[in-house]
Amino acid sequence: MNNIAIIGAGITTFGESWDKSLRDMILEASLLALSDAGLAPKNIDAIFIGNMLGSKTAGQSHLGSLVATQLGIDVDSTRVEAACASGGLAILRAIESIQSGRHETVLVVGAEKMSDLSNGEITNALMEAGDEEWEMPYGATFAGLYALMAKIHMQKYHTTERQLAEVAVKNHYHASLNSHAHFRNTITVEQVLASPPVATPLKLLDCCPNSDGGAAVILTSKRHVKSHHDPVFVLGAASATDTLSLAQRAHISEIRATQKASQQALKEAGVTQKDIDVLEVHDCFTIAEIMALEDMEFYKKGAAAKAIQRGETKLGGKLPVNVSGGLKAAGHPVGATGVKQAVEIVTQLRGKAQQRQVKNAKIGLTHNVGGTGATCVVHIFGKEDHA
Amino acid sequence: MNNIAIIGAGITTFGESWDKSLRDMILEASLLALSDAGLAPKNIDAIFIGNMLGSKTAGQSHLGSLVATQLGIDVDSTRVEAACASGGLAILRAIESIQSGRHETVLVVGAEKMSDLSNGEITNALMEAGDEEWEMPYGATFAGLYALMAKIHMQKYHTTERQLAEVAVKNHYHASLNSHAHFRNTITVEQVLASPPVATPLKLLDCCPNSDGGAAVILTSKRHVKSHHDPVFVLGAASATDTLSLAQRAHISEIRATQKASQQALKEAGVTQKDIDVLEVHDCFTIAEIMALEDMEFYKKGAAAKAIQRGETKLGGKLPVNVSGGLKAAGHPVGATGVKQAVEIVTQLRGKAQQRQVKNAKIGLTHNVGGTGATCVVHIFGKEDHA
Repeated sequence: MNNIAIIGAGITTFGESWDKSLRDMILEASLLALSDAGLAPKNIDAIFIGNMLGSKTAGQSHLGSLVATQLGIDVDSTRVEAACASGGLAILRAIESIQSGRHETVLVVGAEKMSDLSNGEITNALMEAGDEEWEMPYGATFAGLYALMAKIHMQKYHTTERQLAEVAVKNHYHASLNSHAHFRNTITVEQVLASPPVATPLKLLDCCPNSDGGAAVILTSKRHVKSHHDPVFVLGAASATDTLSLAQRAHISEIRATQKASQQALKEAGVTQKDIDVLEVHDCFTIAEIMALEDMEFYKKGAAAKAIQRGETKLGGKLPVNVSGGLKAAGHPVGATGVKQAVEIVTQLRGKAQQRQVKNAKIGLTHNVGGTGATCVVHIFGKEDHA
Repeated sequence: MNNIAIIGAGITTFGESWDKSLRDMILEASLLALSDAGLAPKNIDAIFIGNMLGSKTAGQSHLGSLVATQLGIDVDSTRVEAACASGGLAILRAIESIQSGRHETVLVVGAEKMSDLSNGEITNALMEAGDEEWEMPYGATFAGLYALMAKIHMQKYHTTERQLAEVAVKNHYHASLNSHAHFRNTITVEQVLASPPVATPLKLLDCCPNSDGGAAVILTSKRHVKSHHDPVFVLGAASATDTLSLAQRAHISEIRATQKASQQALKEAGVTQKDIDVLEVHDCFTIAEIMALEDMEFYKKGAAAKAIQRGETKLGGKLPVNVSGGLKAAGHPVGATGVKQAVEIVTQLRGKAQQRQVKNAKIGLTHNVGGTGATCVVHIFGKEDHA
């Protein structure tokens, strides 16, 4: 509907990249996307970078200019920050930039270098995604907040710890097929259940890791798409917010921003849930994937966990979810995640996902969340432009 | 040209606001702009917030959701960061958002709370606007970097310390007429020259202060403009980047990003320098105002300082510059500055600037810089829409 296509995609290996800095990962992902598109830096009219923690991890803000400097160009360049939704929101702003007529070919890069801080420092830094006045001083962590959501979900819908574990098992299996993933080992439900508690009912293996990584895509208006680009079209895009703190919300086992953003994006794309062949959703904790599938109405409230347990959302099932391995197993370099989700969908729709290819994937969706759902961004991509 | 107008503007008093937090200033500026536009929060379709230091000063990132939460709405909301150009760049992205057709009425707020950190902490935090690998480790500060630019400018164009001082004297005089300004005292050239050296040739009174403050504007597409709005139209807008570090540039007594952004914005507006009645330029240090006027070709290289000395850029002169008091005297809460410049031009074009009103001001320009010129944003506003 938007006459906009992704014509290049690039991604670094996610993990603990001791040999690479934040700027190394920005450059690597950007050059891979440019090379994939067959473009040189001088073909880029504008840049958007999604990053949350550069100030904390590298002592570096002002990343818009940094990316342009690294590429040797002097174009309009913007850092977008919306906590863990920074990457997805950067893509939405890039789409607007092209739709406005101001720019034609735009690079979006997301990157984060988390391993330079200790786990305690990162846990504190990530809490800046929550409410600094009403959550952080009371000792809240994101594992703790998502544990509250899980507890209520279990109470309301009889979701079990075993069902939560199934999400992790599935996503580790998917990641075992993805050479860019942070964790490539498969795990069992028993291993998840036996892993150390982080915030009950969430255990270590219910939680995504802190990762280093970068991802990039190049978007352009339809008239610049060449045959060799193997384009993937933007069909719908939307973002919504909810209260910064969890306690201010009417319901804490659902995310209103996900509901609103997904409804808008589906409407814009002119498709329904049934048309979606493959999804990348924000599974920072196992409960988050369950809530995402329900809030986007792929399943009724309380039904997603059972469907996951039945294997419906596994590669080969009827609705493959997080075939990349998701945040849980492919890794979660926060500013990169929303862009990485788009890279995965592009790879799937191009039919280039090798071992983890979803057959005949024609339409894909990405769902990227900041905080406990205070920001949500949903994009829908298609092999064909419906316009 | 853009069929977009500012229909509301609000600003807090700039200064050391010990009784207000970052979120207090965001809310105050936003509500003032809404009230000025005669709108309620529910009339806002999207939000952009310009902020650089929230993570460091308040332990709070994810400000997009924060603003929406404070206003009780759940709309698409984005934090834009480009160091001291965050506010100006947030306005540019808001313009694109409306031009894209995705949103119709958009709030842009810029805010910064700097007094919560010590001067040393702020100096270090601000260095994140420069190059963390190639400037910061060598002891560079922004006063030091702008001092290098001043030194070269003095060598090349025979600019004098007295001429630099004239910029500060003029801007303090202007600020004495502005009830929102950080410093309202007038100063003399002798006082500037006798003030303690910070980084030779820059003295204390050549440098802008660290300020607390917030500013907000509401933009809408032309068809939503009502007669009571007293609209000010967006005629042109552009942003460009240059290398993050000063040492990588061919010339350091000029800012290429300013040259490129101003040329583009003037072209889009279909006006020339002669059509501009009033300017707000980025005078973080006195030398910066001189370079800005030259790089935007209001004066030839080497001629601006003499024109300032002649009084041409003072209220009542032929080209009034920084009638608000500029960053130098009205204050520089970094994320707010670009938005505050727009608020000042709106006030001037509406004829509501009281004691500091520029007579018959019909077209105004804002010039907002990040780092040593690694990002520049220029906007041109008009009392009439030239479209």
